[in-house]
Amino acid sequence: MELGMIGLGKMGANMAQRLVRGGHRVVGFDPDSDARAAVEAFGAETADSLESMVDKLPAPRVAWMMVPAGDITGGTVDALMGLLATGDTIVDGGNSNYKNTLDRAKAVADKGMHYIDCGTSGGVWGLAEGYSMMVGGEKDAVERLRPVFETLAPGKEQGWGHVGPSGAGHFTKMVHNGIEYGLMQAYAEGFSIMEHKKEFGLDLHQVAGIWRTGSVVRSWLLDLTADALGKNPAMDGIAPFVPDSGEGRWTVAEAIDLDVPAPVITQSLIARLRSRDGESFADKLLSAMRNEFGGHAMKKEQ
Amino acid sequence: MELGMIGLGKMGANMAQRLVRGGHRVVGFDPDSDARAAVEAFGAETADSLESMVDKLPAPRVAWMMVPAGDITGGTVDALMGLLATGDTIVDGGNSNYKNTLDRAKAVADKGMHYIDCGTSGGVWGLAEGYSMMVGGEKDAVERLRPVFETLAPGKEQGWGHVGPSGAGHFTKMVHNGIEYGLMQAYAEGFSIMEHKKEFGLDLHQVAGIWRTGSVVRSWLLDLTADALGKNPAMDGIAPFVPDSGEGRWTVAEAIDLDVPAPVITQSLIARLRSRDGESFADKLLSAMRNEFGGHAMKKEQ
Amino acid sequence: MELGMIGLGKMGANMAQRLVRGGHRVVGFDPDSDARAAVEAFGAETADSLESMVDKLPAPRVAWMMVPAGDITGGTVDALMGLLATGDTIVDGGNSNYKNTLDRAKAVADKGMHYIDCGTSGGVWGLAEGYSMMVGGEKDAVERLRPVFETLAPGKEQGWGHVGPSGAGHFTKMVHNGIEYGLMQAYAEGFSIMEHKKEFGLDLHQVAGIWRTGSVVRSWLLDLTADALGKNPAMDGIAPFVPDSGEGRWTVAEAIDLDVPAPVITQSLIARLRSRDGESFADKLLSAMRNEFGGHAMKKEQ
Amino acid sequence: MELGMIGLGKMGANMAQRLVRGGHRVVGFDPDSDARAAVEAFGAETADSLESMVDKLPAPRVAWMMVPAGDITGGTVDALMGLLATGDTIVDGGNSNYKNTLDRAKAVADKGMHYIDCGTSGGVWGLAEGYSMMVGGEKDAVERLRPVFETLAPGKEQGWGHVGPSGAGHFTKMVHNGIEYGLMQAYAEGFSIMEHKKEFGLDLHQVAGIWRTGSVVRSWLLDLTADALGKNPAMDGIAPFVPDSGEGRWTVAEAIDLDVPAPVITQSLIARLRSRDGESFADKLLSAMRNEFGGHAMKKEQ
Repeated sequence: MELGMIGLGKMGANMAQRLVRGGHRVVGFDPDSDARAAVEAFGAETADSLESMVDKLPAPRVAWMMVPAGDITGGTVDALMGLLATGDTIVDGGNSNYKNTLDRAKAVADKGMHYIDCGTSGGVWGLAEGYSMMVGGEKDAVERLRPVFETLAPGKEQGWGHVGPSGAGHFTKMVHNGIEYGLMQAYAEGFSIMEHKKEFGLDLHQVAGIWRTGSVVRSWLLDLTADALGKNPAMDGIAPFVPDSGEGRWTVAEAIDLDVPAPVITQSLIARLRSRDGESFADKLLSAMRNEFGGHAMKKEQ
Repeated sequence: MELGMIGLGKMGANMAQRLVRGGHRVVGFDPDSDARAAVEAFGAETADSLESMVDKLPAPRVAWMMVPAGDITGGTVDALMGLLATGDTIVDGGNSNYKNTLDRAKAVADKGMHYIDCGTSGGVWGLAEGYSMMVGGEKDAVERLRPVFETLAPGKEQGWGHVGPSGAGHFTKMVHNGIEYGLMQAYAEGFSIMEHKKEFGLDLHQVAGIWRTGSVVRSWLLDLTADALGKNPAMDGIAPFVPDSGEGRWTVAEAIDLDVPAPVITQSLIARLRSRDGESFADKLLSAMRNEFGGHAMKKEQ
Repeated sequence: MELGMIGLGKMGANMAQRLVRGGHRVVGFDPDSDARAAVEAFGAETADSLESMVDKLPAPRVAWMMVPAGDITGGTVDALMGLLATGDTIVDGGNSNYKNTLDRAKAVADKGMHYIDCGTSGGVWGLAEGYSMMVGGEKDAVERLRPVFETLAPGKEQGWGHVGPSGAGHFTKMVHNGIEYGLMQAYAEGFSIMEHKKEFGLDLHQVAGIWRTGSVVRSWLLDLTADALGKNPAMDGIAPFVPDSGEGRWTVAEAIDLDVPAPVITQSLIARLRSRDGESFADKLLSAMRNEFGGHAMKKEQ
Repeated sequence: MELGMIGLGKMGANMAQRLVRGGHRVVGFDPDSDARAAVEAFGAETADSLESMVDKLPAPRVAWMMVPAGDITGGTVDALMGLLATGDTIVDGGNSNYKNTLDRAKAVADKGMHYIDCGTSGGVWGLAEGYSMMVGGEKDAVERLRPVFETLAPGKEQGWGHVGPSGAGHFTKMVHNGIEYGLMQAYAEGFSIMEHKKEFGLDLHQVAGIWRTGSVVRSWLLDLTADALGKNPAMDGIAPFVPDSGEGRWTVAEAIDLDVPAPVITQSLIARLRSRDGESFADKLLSAMRNEFGGHAMKKEQ
């Protein structure tokens, strides 16, 4: 197939490369000329504007966005609605909030175009191993892109699927990331407990390695954890500072909206907030309260 | 009544003073001569050894311990069992683990003496306001000490009670402290949320003051929080470092033993552990894992 | 002063009564004629429409809403904007989301009227004990209503205050309720632990009573807990089903928006969600997973 | 090699079978004659008493226990110490608390025998896929059993390792299970959120299948979850009731002992406790408290 790939960052460039390798024609657009040059190197065509990208594609066109969620995605959809024609398809492969996707899909459908939300997992490993894709939108529109999905996925019938109407893809990806937070935190806590048990002198890299086969906790995240522990067993020089992106927060909010108790996913998010709250006002106040009722000494800030 | 007070620290000295004021004869013992001098200043007698303290008391004797839980309490009980006689009473007014109390009460009863566990709340305010006391032990033994309890308590029939057999007093005090952790954390989180909402420019001391009358969250801990915020609204110079003593941990362990879900008390304890884990290995590992799968940059330690 | 009270339910009627007792003239409006009759009984005037209520008030008018948050409050504000004149004041005494308040305050100000958000705590006890009020809005507008606040509050200078600009009152009340959730859950867990410790045969009503004076956990919520345990020590016939209203959810969402870790307030909310999730899909799936990897038997639904 | 296998339940029988297939001579003991008959069917020898089993093994003997943790393991070790001789080896392949293991290893070493703790993961799948084994004990004693470990493991150098001194194997397995609780709960919550989002009509079995390749959350537990959802997508007839065994509790206790914050593993355990607390006293009390302060109706038990 032929498609335009908008956004040639880490994700977009790798996906373009996997598509070119799979025999597809890709016209990549990114405002950054270095990013365009990088994808030309492996055989993608490029365009230096959305207009130009659209011109280089045959109708019905496919424009696949791999751009940051939020205003940039919104602005790109608006621009594409002005450039594309009835029957063309816009794909949002980023981590958009599914509520935004619902709005955008409606606006796009009102113009007679198709909108597909493709929740995409796989990170920097997707180029080699394929991407896991949760796809939302009309059945026919999704089916037309089957060759693209089959190339991007780990296998023809593996790792991707049409999960429901517009929004369902991003919703499913959001929950995927919420689960991911929980899994990561569970491993991190377990390894931290072992790290603190000095008397056993455990080699955490070895333990992670043992668990990678045969154990109940084996997983791809464990494989990566083993790699990380192999490179830097004591986590030297790494700050205990964990960013979070929108999906974890949205999962927590969605769970509450749906009256679903999700203590572990929620605590995973809170643990990340706490990792970035080095000067916790709450903890200072607790220290002051202990001093008030019990006369307990407060530790002074250094 | 007449009783020996063992341990003349913050708690023991204040309780001795409240008893003396109430017309009781107190013989205080503490290895530290300054501590003894301090209680003599308000009319307590003192002794410079347990033996001497015991000698100065009429049978049946009452020996009230306000000493640190654990080995010191255990050693003091052992020593007292060698010095006291049938019919005498030992009171443990400290924060002992109720399981230790069960063992000690049995050993003491085997010698024909009485053992009373008196969970004591009130902190540095107890001298002025009276102590809340949860008392465990045989009914008759507790009744004999009624005049003492009535003097130490906020009022004759207020703030103290015989809650059950040996161990029940310390068990109840343990749960009391578990609840206290939860209450403190709830306030600390709420004030922290308000502190971070810069756009409203809230005066936290004012808000705490408003809530002190009429509101659903009014409490003595809130009164203290208001005081603390009045003295130091920005918590300047206080480290975000919160110690915990045994009772919170024991409450969490007991809840699990009893199959009782106690998420809030448990998270209150975990929040304190986290306040002291400035170099969280778990958070460093999470940062490394994010780098592995997504190529996300890790923040470096400074 | 003279004011219109809109909404004569549990809260509005009691506040009207406290105001009448305090010498104010109150014109109450409620679509329900029984509700109007009830406030007439203690000396309030009434009106059977908003228009009529407005007509009965002298300019500059004060219209105080005690109606459910959300669309009803929004609709009432819209209607009042059509009926009131420049210089009049609308007070929202309900539990509105502060974000809605910000929008409404702006719309009202654009018409030259004043908008005050008054977060109100006190429940059914407010009539007798006074209400705790956190007030947001312009300083002058708030000052003009001082006589009303002083009558509704527990004392002239007690239990109420102007905490900040529009929205600050409802924001503060929202956090108040988040804290309330945490406090309630901490007590509930503690009493549940004691209830499960059958060997000590604790009398929970007695324990709550002991703690009410002198202890660190004394509070108004504990007073109420003692009352509840006195009436029904085993909680006979009460379903383990705990509703939540908006404020707890909003507090959790706000904490996350502000990057503030609030594990205890959050778990309090999750505990309530869980109390209403009798057929937990998550727990069923956990049971099925245990069966898959370990061959563990699944308990069957009855 | 030759070894005695004590306990021919689900785990012991499968391990015996994998060893026999791998060319080892196994003498199985179990008090249940059916269990013995079952292992004879695939070529293991059996004995109807510990004495007889010991008699059938050449010195230095290896006795491998796959029996329930606690008193049964303790009693079996005591019996074996009376039957075995200097230089013989006892292996505990069960889920013993590592603190018990430390005591038993010392007692066994005092008799001149060897004690190995082998934390074993793999469940009912171990027969086909191999077991993951975390081994504690003296290096030489572990090395002597290398052929056994290599047969039981998924591969010669895979899925097993000597992780440290006595106790380190069971400690590591304990943490493994703690992590397992967290992983399971994270998936369960995520699928529950999707199950409640009725508007998207998600097919959970399909979603689990998509995630099995390429996604960040792929894992063996996800594979099993997909199987479970394939068999019973709505979890029909399964009670929301989740047992827990000792390891999760011990992990939580150990984390607290080591001052390591482990909110997610802890909440996973608490979620299981809650799943079995259908008549939550805490939730009933919360309902009663809401009634006390706000006059909110309490839901009645049916």
